[in-house]
Amino acid sequence: MVKILIIGAGRSTVSLIDYLLKNSAANDWKITVADMDIKLAEEKVSGNPNGKAISFDIKNEEKRRLVIIEHDLIISMLPAFMHGDVAKDCVEFGKHMATASYVSADMKALDAEAKKKNIILLNECGLDPGIDHASAMKLIDEIKQQGGEILSFKSYCGGLVAPESNDNPWGYKFSWNPRNVILAGQGTAQYLDGGELKFIPYNRLYTQNDVIEMDGYGKFDAYANRDSISYIDAYGLQSIKTMVRGTLRQHGYCKAWNVFIKLGLTDDTSLITNADKLTYTSLLDSFLPPAKGTLKEKLKAFMGAGWDSEIEKQMDYLELFSDKKIILTQGTPAQLLQALLEEKWKLKPNDKDMIVMQHQFEYNLPGESNQKLNSSLVVIGKDEQHTGMALTVGLPLAITVKNFLTKKFNLNGVQIPTKKEIYLPLLKELEENQIIFSEKIIA
Amino acid sequence: MVKILIIGAGRSTVSLIDYLLKNSAANDWKITVADMDIKLAEEKVSGNPNGKAISFDIKNEEKRRLVIIEHDLIISMLPAFMHGDVAKDCVEFGKHMATASYVSADMKALDAEAKKKNIILLNECGLDPGIDHASAMKLIDEIKQQGGEILSFKSYCGGLVAPESNDNPWGYKFSWNPRNVILAGQGTAQYLDGGELKFIPYNRLYTQNDVIEMDGYGKFDAYANRDSISYIDAYGLQSIKTMVRGTLRQHGYCKAWNVFIKLGLTDDTSLITNADKLTYTSLLDSFLPPAKGTLKEKLKAFMGAGWDSEIEKQMDYLELFSDKKIILTQGTPAQLLQALLEEKWKLKPNDKDMIVMQHQFEYNLPGESNQKLNSSLVVIGKDEQHTGMALTVGLPLAITVKNFLTKKFNLNGVQIPTKKEIYLPLLKELEENQIIFSEKIIA
Repeated sequence: MVKILIIGAGRSTVSLIDYLLKNSAANDWKITVADMDIKLAEEKVSGNPNGKAISFDIKNEEKRRLVIIEHDLIISMLPAFMHGDVAKDCVEFGKHMATASYVSADMKALDAEAKKKNIILLNECGLDPGIDHASAMKLIDEIKQQGGEILSFKSYCGGLVAPESNDNPWGYKFSWNPRNVILAGQGTAQYLDGGELKFIPYNRLYTQNDVIEMDGYGKFDAYANRDSISYIDAYGLQSIKTMVRGTLRQHGYCKAWNVFIKLGLTDDTSLITNADKLTYTSLLDSFLPPAKGTLKEKLKAFMGAGWDSEIEKQMDYLELFSDKKIILTQGTPAQLLQALLEEKWKLKPNDKDMIVMQHQFEYNLPGESNQKLNSSLVVIGKDEQHTGMALTVGLPLAITVKNFLTKKFNLNGVQIPTKKEIYLPLLKELEENQIIFSEKIIA
Repeated sequence: MVKILIIGAGRSTVSLIDYLLKNSAANDWKITVADMDIKLAEEKVSGNPNGKAISFDIKNEEKRRLVIIEHDLIISMLPAFMHGDVAKDCVEFGKHMATASYVSADMKALDAEAKKKNIILLNECGLDPGIDHASAMKLIDEIKQQGGEILSFKSYCGGLVAPESNDNPWGYKFSWNPRNVILAGQGTAQYLDGGELKFIPYNRLYTQNDVIEMDGYGKFDAYANRDSISYIDAYGLQSIKTMVRGTLRQHGYCKAWNVFIKLGLTDDTSLITNADKLTYTSLLDSFLPPAKGTLKEKLKAFMGAGWDSEIEKQMDYLELFSDKKIILTQGTPAQLLQALLEEKWKLKPNDKDMIVMQHQFEYNLPGESNQKLNSSLVVIGKDEQHTGMALTVGLPLAITVKNFLTKKFNLNGVQIPTKKEIYLPLLKELEENQIIFSEKIIA
């Protein structure tokens, strides 16, 4: 018997827990689902005899350690910054661990000890990071095997709303943590372009975006992720000239979001008190430099070439000029903006979300130079509960955990799904679940 | 006998420690100076029989608590974010505490317990915050006593270089923590302007600056401090229309610093690895969007109206176009910039720094409306060791501690020098030390 502990039972865990419970009888697994809110955990376990729901506060160190020590493999679905304590406990007690999050510096620091104890710290096993690594590495290894040389790799991914449920001018609804969407891109993006190291600071990130096209789905904006450089080594692409990883939004989103950045509405460090005495209209006015005219005229003048009629529709949709009350008593500008967007960008019942991913390769093959290949994935969610996001984050994590426990691969220390023994069986089973990339040679 | 513990013996503690040691015999004080670097502590104690130097690591909790429990009043000269642990120990053991730093949320949370134990947590007793509060409150209370109503209060302060030592086109050299200068203004500035709440985000802070004039010293740029709003209550100015606190730099500094902000060179969140393979010239190039021409031409085009020949001189002075090597192996953009500026903006032996402060009042008196009054302070340092900064940060803290210990005032809980019983004897003794404001009625 193997005892699996899943910490966190929020919205992106549906597919993960379903899959593991479904496979529990055949594999003799006992699965504990732990959440602050036991009802959320019970809902997910949904009476399965191999499942158990417990109430659990990650900050209660004593309880946390008691629970972890009773299990063999711990899956943390907590927000990324909370994995650290769990990882330390896991290494101390010799327990395997798996997450869908980026490898943090804390996690990396545990690699040597994890190897010594022969336990795995499996990370980046969700969608992005996760499916992106697996699907990219398959193509990279195939090109290399043909004696090819990869010149350029661009990889884009976004969690969006499906065309049939897209009824707002932003083309966006939240399918995951809204806070991460509001703060997306803060810091400095780093990538490689034509052999040159390039940096884009947050204040220009949404203006220096790429635009890509997906057959049947039209155009998308793509802004560069914070770190593309470290994946040059991770992917074994040391001689590559262009390497960019980016995030997709509906075309037109970046130019409009830049209005919030330029205004200052995405700052998450300064507290505005007595916010419930303000409206979103007065908040905007307070952020604008002194000028004449109506608020909309002032905003237009302020944005200059960064304004157009499409942006006007997007801002109108958010009721920014309608004296809409702020409901929070206090908050950072980012928190006040989030409260508004959570109302405006909510998935309605039966709304479908959409995952879009595209890898763009340029490479030379022996005797054939300047080959171009795009590999694309679109996944449409079932409804506002069973989202494409929950499926594509949870399923690859669940499959990889199963493959590890059933000895399809045997690795220890910090791992991400870039190794063949991890990504091959993973991609195969994803295909069986209709998560299928389509490849296209570009003329 | 009273036992005083001073934690931290860095460059801004010279005047503080000198003053307390000088007054130790008359008041029967024993003074312990604690620093990680015992030599620094010994230098400051300089053989005084009432002084003692000890080596001290604030992170060693056990030792910290053992040392604190042996003293009656603890002065923390550590970086502000490190006061928290000391403050908790002080309240637990019933010890008084004093700092020159802003009251943090952690500090504020200790107010009730400090009052219960009848101990004082004295904060904001340096220059800015410190002398600014004391000198402003004296005038505010005087105007109120005459039945006046204050309409507008603007208060500016800067730690600069004296005209006779100003030999670089930035008009700036470091007289305190360089890191704070590089990161200055990140977040959202909040102030009140003509009855309206105003916010300025970091990306526009150095372009929406004020310019003020000081008799005999010319023009200065002033950018708004992060929080002016909370001082409306602290100063008892609930009906005021305009309230701004700002930081001064030499005129022309803000426009040039904005180049770094727009480029992205002040970000402190993203790590650039292998930085020692770069030059400052290639770093700049990596931050610029793709364009044609030499680096300087590209930068000029990028900045547009935000560029002028003065800025060109300032950038040339920093050797930004001279392929100067970066010496750090890795660092955030802000850390790489700091490494360069620490070299270029270093106070040379016998260089003098300069403190400039100005309060601008507009108020109505009974029968006399629209009065204007400026109150200004200039302090020139002695040399690069005995700076105006160390004097104006350390002396008011030392004087206020002395006044508290000699019962010139009797307060407990969290306090800042806005109360008459604190500021009157403080300002008097500062005057005796040639720290004197000059007042001027504006016609």
